[in-house]
Amino acid sequence: MRTIESLRARCAELADLGSLLMLGRWDQQVMMPAAGGAARALQLATLTKLAHELSTAEEIGAWLQELESAPLDELDADVVRLARRDWERARRVPAELAGERSRAHAEGHESWVRARAEDDFDAFAPALERNVELARTYADCIAEPGQTPYEALLADFDYGLRSEQLSALFARLATELPELAERAAVRSPPPAPKVPIAAQQAAVAGTLTRLGVERESWRVDVSAHPFTSWLGEGDLRITTRYADGDVESLLSSLHEYGHALYERQVDPALSRTPLGGGTSMSIHESQSKLWENHVARSPAFAHVLAEELSKGGFQIEPAALHARLVGVERSLIRVSADPLTYPLHIILRFELELALVGGELAVRDLPAAWNEGMRRLLGIAPPSAALGCMQDVHWASGAFGYFPSYALGCLIAAQLWEALEAELGSREDDLRRAEVEPIKRWLAERVHRHGRRLDTLPLVERATGRGLEVEPFLRYVAPLAGD
Amino acid sequence: MRTIESLRARCAELADLGSLLMLGRWDQQVMMPAAGGAARALQLATLTKLAHELSTAEEIGAWLQELESAPLDELDADVVRLARRDWERARRVPAELAGERSRAHAEGHESWVRARAEDDFDAFAPALERNVELARTYADCIAEPGQTPYEALLADFDYGLRSEQLSALFARLATELPELAERAAVRSPPPAPKVPIAAQQAAVAGTLTRLGVERESWRVDVSAHPFTSWLGEGDLRITTRYADGDVESLLSSLHEYGHALYERQVDPALSRTPLGGGTSMSIHESQSKLWENHVARSPAFAHVLAEELSKGGFQIEPAALHARLVGVERSLIRVSADPLTYPLHIILRFELELALVGGELAVRDLPAAWNEGMRRLLGIAPPSAALGCMQDVHWASGAFGYFPSYALGCLIAAQLWEALEAELGSREDDLRRAEVEPIKRWLAERVHRHGRRLDTLPLVERATGRGLEVEPFLRYVAPLAGD
Repeated sequence: MRTIESLRARCAELADLGSLLMLGRWDQQVMMPAAGGAARALQLATLTKLAHELSTAEEIGAWLQELESAPLDELDADVVRLARRDWERARRVPAELAGERSRAHAEGHESWVRARAEDDFDAFAPALERNVELARTYADCIAEPGQTPYEALLADFDYGLRSEQLSALFARLATELPELAERAAVRSPPPAPKVPIAAQQAAVAGTLTRLGVERESWRVDVSAHPFTSWLGEGDLRITTRYADGDVESLLSSLHEYGHALYERQVDPALSRTPLGGGTSMSIHESQSKLWENHVARSPAFAHVLAEELSKGGFQIEPAALHARLVGVERSLIRVSADPLTYPLHIILRFELELALVGGELAVRDLPAAWNEGMRRLLGIAPPSAALGCMQDVHWASGAFGYFPSYALGCLIAAQLWEALEAELGSREDDLRRAEVEPIKRWLAERVHRHGRRLDTLPLVERATGRGLEVEPFLRYVAPLAGD
Repeated sequence: MRTIESLRARCAELADLGSLLMLGRWDQQVMMPAAGGAARALQLATLTKLAHELSTAEEIGAWLQELESAPLDELDADVVRLARRDWERARRVPAELAGERSRAHAEGHESWVRARAEDDFDAFAPALERNVELARTYADCIAEPGQTPYEALLADFDYGLRSEQLSALFARLATELPELAERAAVRSPPPAPKVPIAAQQAAVAGTLTRLGVERESWRVDVSAHPFTSWLGEGDLRITTRYADGDVESLLSSLHEYGHALYERQVDPALSRTPLGGGTSMSIHESQSKLWENHVARSPAFAHVLAEELSKGGFQIEPAALHARLVGVERSLIRVSADPLTYPLHIILRFELELALVGGELAVRDLPAAWNEGMRRLLGIAPPSAALGCMQDVHWASGAFGYFPSYALGCLIAAQLWEALEAELGSREDDLRRAEVEPIKRWLAERVHRHGRRLDTLPLVERATGRGLEVEPFLRYVAPLAGD
């Protein structure tokens, strides 16, 4: 076998194992009987361990060394480039540290579940301290020359981002958004339409069908937390959840659709190579946010959603539905935040995790720092740690450097949407009748097909002709504040 | 790590990968969107290859050698004994042959699907010849001293059986059953009640619930071919299928329940060791047949089934339902055969595969030999190869030595049932009200808990105090013939 074929064969096996891990997790959250949890955890741990062994094997290094001085076409050169990056990063982590992190994250998660239920930050603090410590040790292992520890962590989710750049982007948002939120707050939010679950289900199914979700290659199920799985070409699975009277399911199903469409439209030639998948968390989030913020929350698409709700037996005026979907109301809780104030929740977390990892903030001082930040950014403060710094699962599970992608996703979505409309013209007429083929084609060409061949920032530049900016997002949210 | 712990850790990993393979297949047949098939096939092939590499690794041999002269408790000694058997059998197959077989089986299956649709045996013959040849080569690799090639194949499904013993048991059945079938044939079968699908669904759900199938650890789904998956303690999954007007779903759901209950009641201490699972195909089939033939087809349990159908809106007298479930009618097709004539279909296949593997029968002569056998055993002959020697998937997929377990399952079920009733008393009153806890406990103690610690024949002797016999089965079927 030629060396490039050996490398590609190993990468294909790793991709297959990744898909099976994803299947195991999908099944766990959607289908598995509750009593199967303990056995499934062991099965997934075994598969993760084997995949890690295969991905860090000595022979990969030898193949890479040979291939790096061989004449390769552009695609194979990119396969080698990403395989090298993944191999190096995986190899830098000693097996003992990997094991210790995975145990600490599991214990942190358990401790968090218990402590949050009792609103007891002190009970959670030791586990969080351990996670912070291990994150620093891990960052020291994987850091590339010139990277700060926080940037090293960030690179697991978004390769190539610098803290300084994030700080600059976020500083701008932290100045502009509170003022807009203040202005929006003087208007009382529109009354919430009480949409029965059956009508929501009909509207979700009907809307997704109009966007091209067909049974041949899609599943749409229900789970406690909405998520997306891509288990191979022709096997896309999204989940949503239904709360009586709420309309979150309309937004969350479009959000997950955006994630799934990204994976579906990656160039099939990249399938089962290190290039075959979404390039970063922030680009992934930009795809979900594009469909959530710029499609589902547009005045035009409210006509489609209202039509589909009406087929489910619930009548509402498109304008009233739209008003509900974009209503601004400052919230203590990130996941129920409106599109205008959402990034402020992320900025708070970014500032705090940067300080935690950098050692400028001690875990014991986190609740006070959280509350101070909430007052500064959102003008409200939580009455408890459960509704404050203990609301998210991320730090409890050791994920530091993940949060920024949520805000970057909002920014990139807005920037892509402006570029798309600049090129294709306003989407208003199309969206009113759920005509989204031109949007899908544009995204496929500019974003999706590249897979991991382009990292976050080069991809944004290539797709929009400009560096990453905050202005498109500010232009998007200004009307939500009533401007 | 102590050597026994190294071995147990490896066995646990292999068990985990086995569970994930089973999950991948379950999902493929029950949940996967159709377009996901190609990717899933690659994923399962990758996982199979990795599991094979792990299960045949050199170091296992070193561990075994050390452990075989070490003082071990009874359980660990059995772990080592079975690990040795599995390792030896897996190691005897060269990787190239394994690959060639798996390709030939896939191609054989494809060829069979096409040829059967066109009723063209000649088109299928080359693929079948290839499978027979490879089965012989494979048998030569894995045969233990004193085993015939056919016995070597048989041992993949039922370790320790001899062809001669099968021939003797089956000869007895081949003498007795045709006569009984002849006698039954003079009575016309009762008219089939036309049960709507909704009533079947209600009855299947209601009956399984009364047998202890709860949502906490069971799933019951629909698939093209009913099957059972056990994905870990607390995760049992059975499927059934519904045809309008038919009652097959009542039998097949109890059949699959029997398979699942076996796995569920294996001693948890054997979990994730080579001992943690059903010991053989014939014992597995005895468990499904026990619930299908001796519970679902009993006059007493017909009361339960009729009650549950009636909750689903379909009224039928228990006696009429029972008559339908045990009606004898000679059929060309194995899977729709009644309990009396079923073993005759198996005996035909056993005779033919023994001759094919032994070289006494050429593939081109198979259709004639099939038709001759059908006339001799069942008194009817198929009008076509599609309804004759091309009806089953097994040989097309290279499975030689599998068929006997279907007949052995019927025999062992009858023998276990007699032993059970001899000890616990007639089950009639209990079955009339779906009281099956004593049956479940008896099976757990005598059959299930042992896992693979006892092979087929020792298990039968231990559970019933007698060697494997045909008389209990003959006593079971005699009344079906109207005796």
